[in-house]
Amino acid sequence: MDQTFMAREIAEIPESVAACLNENMAARMALAENLRAFGVQLVMTVARGSSDHAASYFKYACEIMTGIPVASVGPSIASVYGASLQLPRTVSISISQSGQSPDIVAMTRAARASGAIAVALTNNPDSDFAHISSHCLPLHCGPERSVAATKSFVTSVVSGLALLAAWQKDKALMDALTELPAACEQALACDWGALSDRLVRAPALFVLGRGAGYAIASEMALKFKETSAIHAEAYSAAEVLHGPAALVERGFPVLSLICDDAAKTGFMSTAQRLHEQGADVFATAPVPNVTELPVVPPLHPLVDPLLRVVSFYSFIEGLARRRGLHPDTPKHLRKITETI
Amino acid sequence: MDQTFMAREIAEIPESVAACLNENMAARMALAENLRAFGVQLVMTVARGSSDHAASYFKYACEIMTGIPVASVGPSIASVYGASLQLPRTVSISISQSGQSPDIVAMTRAARASGAIAVALTNNPDSDFAHISSHCLPLHCGPERSVAATKSFVTSVVSGLALLAAWQKDKALMDALTELPAACEQALACDWGALSDRLVRAPALFVLGRGAGYAIASEMALKFKETSAIHAEAYSAAEVLHGPAALVERGFPVLSLICDDAAKTGFMSTAQRLHEQGADVFATAPVPNVTELPVVPPLHPLVDPLLRVVSFYSFIEGLARRRGLHPDTPKHLRKITETI
Repeated sequence: MDQTFMAREIAEIPESVAACLNENMAARMALAENLRAFGVQLVMTVARGSSDHAASYFKYACEIMTGIPVASVGPSIASVYGASLQLPRTVSISISQSGQSPDIVAMTRAARASGAIAVALTNNPDSDFAHISSHCLPLHCGPERSVAATKSFVTSVVSGLALLAAWQKDKALMDALTELPAACEQALACDWGALSDRLVRAPALFVLGRGAGYAIASEMALKFKETSAIHAEAYSAAEVLHGPAALVERGFPVLSLICDDAAKTGFMSTAQRLHEQGADVFATAPVPNVTELPVVPPLHPLVDPLLRVVSFYSFIEGLARRRGLHPDTPKHLRKITETI
Repeated sequence: MDQTFMAREIAEIPESVAACLNENMAARMALAENLRAFGVQLVMTVARGSSDHAASYFKYACEIMTGIPVASVGPSIASVYGASLQLPRTVSISISQSGQSPDIVAMTRAARASGAIAVALTNNPDSDFAHISSHCLPLHCGPERSVAATKSFVTSVVSGLALLAAWQKDKALMDALTELPAACEQALACDWGALSDRLVRAPALFVLGRGAGYAIASEMALKFKETSAIHAEAYSAAEVLHGPAALVERGFPVLSLICDDAAKTGFMSTAQRLHEQGADVFATAPVPNVTELPVVPPLHPLVDPLLRVVSFYSFIEGLARRRGLHPDTPKHLRKITETI
């Protein structure tokens, strides 16, 4: 098989991240200034699929950094159920790689009509979606031809983090983002072959995360499904012992995305307990008797979960091919989602 | 096997709903008056597990009825990540059957300290959780001894809907709630035996919903896991064709919770398309060549999804036993969740 589009686009992640950070600098600074002057009371996110996982990442980072609650509003609330939202001092963050999903466009228009600052994160700055928004932060990641989004997901998260850093004037996060392209190069080289060997014929697994890592777990679960036909489900590491754990035994594979953050100790105990129940646990941290997957050294607690998905993308593209599937053209799927 | 606690508690749903509606009347009216005077700008929900599915139901109903955005805030944001939330004109709705989960209590205390009206929905009005809240709406459903929550889930949703109806003075919803106990009796009698026959040895399925029906799909997926060790996953009917559909073929079972609401036509098309892909689809509406499950006649678009779960509970308790499991005591699980 020739190199897939997906493999090429994953290899472009470091340069895409650098472009996204550099080329939006002025637009981001202007928007950050606006947000400070506006006195934001509420953040709303609007997205579907992978973009909604980027929105979920933004939610955790925003709530932790600013204390402002983030409401993820289903696009159907306006497009199907006809609700008219009340949005005092609200900034709406809509994310759509293609900029062409009618319900995301409708919701963004509704948010702006309600007085919100409407920000578009999109790889298509010439779209109607970009034009109807008050601000557009283009992803600058170049055309994405694989059905499975990779570099557009990473740059969507980066755009959100860079906006937060500029808005809050957070030097530590800005510095971490500056180092991110190089760290992405390192992340691409992390070899998750042990997990690939285990999953060549597996039908299902759980992917566990907490905080921003839970958003990443959700993104990974979707990629397992769409590229590799594995029934992967994301679960909060805080909830897996209540309910889902009933399934986790007799060698059921579990990927534990443990990061160097405040949740680490509790999460390691959860991974240990699932191992003791008989699960086949893989973890991105050292847990006794559990297979450890290599990751890059810690950079920043709000950036490290994103680096995990960069290593994962390399791994999943290869796993899809080992399972006899073509990662660029999953069955039944199209690139542009046009939900109404 | 003697009748399980779960079976008894499911049978008590109609009387529990009636008690919850009647006994909280005065407290609910007083709270509704407060909310109108307060000028609510944001609603926040705090919950885990089944209670979080009740919170998600509330989110859809609240956004559709009031236009006020609802932010579901992970309890870890305060307890693990130490964020201090800014909550101007906010009402926080915390849901905990037992009233004993430390992180829910911590988040409720933090919300109140930030000036929010903190409402507790709990079956334990003598708990610290109830006492630290500004208002408590007890579930009034009596002791729940099965690990799998049923009547406490239903009454949590009913408490939220009744509060919304009182707050918004919505006569149509109030009338529907008055008829709900009788409708619950009918729902208990709906026979989902066709689905039970199909799932006796099934390892996995998808449960699809939209709007409040998606919250119900999430609750059903959790119950499939915890009582019957089936890897059920909830998906938005709006998103299943983008990604997850790659898995849905060759007889993969799909339960489509179609309701009589604005999403019905699109949802029926999705169910039809999944059938054409080869999925084994069961639906709560007539879709050509798809197995239809009986449901009660439409009562109200924001109440009908809840009636689906009442029929489901009867079904799942029986399915767990057919699969050789004891629904009261799932492996590895305990009743009270004490996440920190």
